[in-house]
Amino acid sequence: MDDTEYHRLLGMGESAFETLEEHLERRNYEGRTYRHLSDARHGVERGTALIAGEVVRGFPKISRTLVLAEGIPTRFADRCDRIAVEEKLNGYNVRAARIDGDVLAFSRSGIVCPFTTRVLDRLVDLEALFEAYPRAMVCGEMIGPENPYTAHDYPDVDSLTFRAFDWRDRVSGDPLAVEQRRERYDRFEVPQTRLFGTYAVGDAADDVRSIVDDLDADGREGVVMKSPDGTEQLKYTTSASNRGDLAYAFSLPFDYGKPFMFRRLIREGFQTVEWDESDDVARDRAHELGEAILLSMRETIRTVADGDAVGERHTVRASPETVDVLLEHLRGQGLQIEIEADRREDGDRVCTFCKRTQSTNDRTENYLEGHIVRE
Amino acid sequence: MDDTEYHRLLGMGESAFETLEEHLERRNYEGRTYRHLSDARHGVERGTALIAGEVVRGFPKISRTLVLAEGIPTRFADRCDRIAVEEKLNGYNVRAARIDGDVLAFSRSGIVCPFTTRVLDRLVDLEALFEAYPRAMVCGEMIGPENPYTAHDYPDVDSLTFRAFDWRDRVSGDPLAVEQRRERYDRFEVPQTRLFGTYAVGDAADDVRSIVDDLDADGREGVVMKSPDGTEQLKYTTSASNRGDLAYAFSLPFDYGKPFMFRRLIREGFQTVEWDESDDVARDRAHELGEAILLSMRETIRTVADGDAVGERHTVRASPETVDVLLEHLRGQGLQIEIEADRREDGDRVCTFCKRTQSTNDRTENYLEGHIVRE
Repeated sequence: MDDTEYHRLLGMGESAFETLEEHLERRNYEGRTYRHLSDARHGVERGTALIAGEVVRGFPKISRTLVLAEGIPTRFADRCDRIAVEEKLNGYNVRAARIDGDVLAFSRSGIVCPFTTRVLDRLVDLEALFEAYPRAMVCGEMIGPENPYTAHDYPDVDSLTFRAFDWRDRVSGDPLAVEQRRERYDRFEVPQTRLFGTYAVGDAADDVRSIVDDLDADGREGVVMKSPDGTEQLKYTTSASNRGDLAYAFSLPFDYGKPFMFRRLIREGFQTVEWDESDDVARDRAHELGEAILLSMRETIRTVADGDAVGERHTVRASPETVDVLLEHLRGQGLQIEIEADRREDGDRVCTFCKRTQSTNDRTENYLEGHIVRE
Repeated sequence: MDDTEYHRLLGMGESAFETLEEHLERRNYEGRTYRHLSDARHGVERGTALIAGEVVRGFPKISRTLVLAEGIPTRFADRCDRIAVEEKLNGYNVRAARIDGDVLAFSRSGIVCPFTTRVLDRLVDLEALFEAYPRAMVCGEMIGPENPYTAHDYPDVDSLTFRAFDWRDRVSGDPLAVEQRRERYDRFEVPQTRLFGTYAVGDAADDVRSIVDDLDADGREGVVMKSPDGTEQLKYTTSASNRGDLAYAFSLPFDYGKPFMFRRLIREGFQTVEWDESDDVARDRAHELGEAILLSMRETIRTVADGDAVGERHTVRASPETVDVLLEHLRGQGLQIEIEADRREDGDRVCTFCKRTQSTNDRTENYLEGHIVRE
């Protein structure tokens, strides 16, 4: 397809597309040049990629409510009677699409991830699916340990694995209805995220609350609620997830954004109020929150005081070639990667590396050395 | 004095002054026009005011250390052998200067505060001081309850009062030596901040630590350390102060800056590490921190959920005329003031008012109504 046809695929005028083009970043994946949009612009989703004359739409941002009882009707009441509630998993978002015969895995921001592309190929057989639906965009989460980007453990998940949570047309971005999507993934034997059930919009808040309670007790992330046609989405997370994020962010306090931290604190405030917690229960929540913040900071400051470096530590298990391209890919993004352990196991390379978080190391060291703060 | 002489008083060239002038804000105090600098620019302190051909220098920013043992020698070792340690009080900063025969009180940002000007006149007799030293700038803190800007209680302080903590030349900004300053304030019977003592720079961290422990136990703010000549300053605050600030900020979470919150969390992290707290003690600190954050947010969200407004509530006690000019002054700054109680006592007007914090009221209400967050 002619390069000048992109605007038609995106459903925009030529001049609007020219403005958009200024924001596209150019990258290369195994000799193939492509462009991607790392921030939403002109109504086009963040993560949209233009590659080999094809469009791969970004995954839409999922809105959040801070208050279930009001947020669910606000979001859904004029659109549907019932909502499907599925589990939101804590890993990293991936979209798989077939381009020129190859199944490629796109990151949230639209970068072809060479590691995920290879791992996915080993984990899930998508050939039949793409044969039947060439314009499919298989959207899901890469979860579990041995993961180069995030680190959250799930019972019965030993290494990186995939769970589908959406199926969209890769050009238009339109989703399948929830039921149809789940049937198709079943048919093609693609593992998918849990469906808790569908609930009447008017009563759903109580049901979701009880699902979230169970997820919280298990240390899991939360739920995504969807209109049955798949077009409307709303998310809500557990306190365990907020706390886990805070502990991680405060373990690298100068590398995480203050808005990231603030949003999670605010969520806790609204949850304790909506759940009408007693003073004692609210105080327990406050204590856990305080521990998430302070004890992880303390750990980091002590590590730096002992002369060690802090950073995001990950272990990956894959073929030696896959690990090679991953490390090259990460370094190509300007990350400073230090390999801390490296061994072979059953033909795979098992490699532990640390992404140096420069700001936290430098600023913590400076303050420990008596650096003066002008504030 | 000719208006064009300001650059000489400020010690800058004419063209540099012209650039500075663009950043000066013009205000009026009782028919007298003046200009002030609300952000530090071109090496001129924030809060510097130009009035009636005279210069009133801004009070310099006091640097902070997060780690006493390293920060004290870093700041002072090449400048002096000993440091004076004085109490840092929790109130609002004021500078009094005599301009054209009138003693005026300048706020931190260089605004003449009509309320503080009148209250100070009633609290402290500065006539003899300014007669003897016309270029004096009396720098201090307005503390105690019945205070329109801050609210921190001190035992034995029943209403707003003044404590001097510095004495500078109003034109050059140069300070007196600590000893000379304290003697002069004694001589003129001006109440001043507490001096804990002077300590050898090399050992001071331990002494300061023990002073800070006592202040913390009393819920007081902290210390300012100074070179004996008064030119170098360094501050350090108690955990009680960090927590108090956090509780206040999180009671109005959408009106306080995230950097304000973040800085106080970071201070707690470095303090627990420097003080080598055991796991148990660190956990207690974490719990108190969590309570400061969550329980104050909870209180605010519940207040708004009950249909009430939140804001900064203050009571002032002064002559009816003084209260009138205060309310006019605050409203003139665009603040929304609601009077909640108003009575006369011994000829004074005792007025409780609330500064509406619009963001916290509006955003909390929105979220409670199910407003969707795009994040």
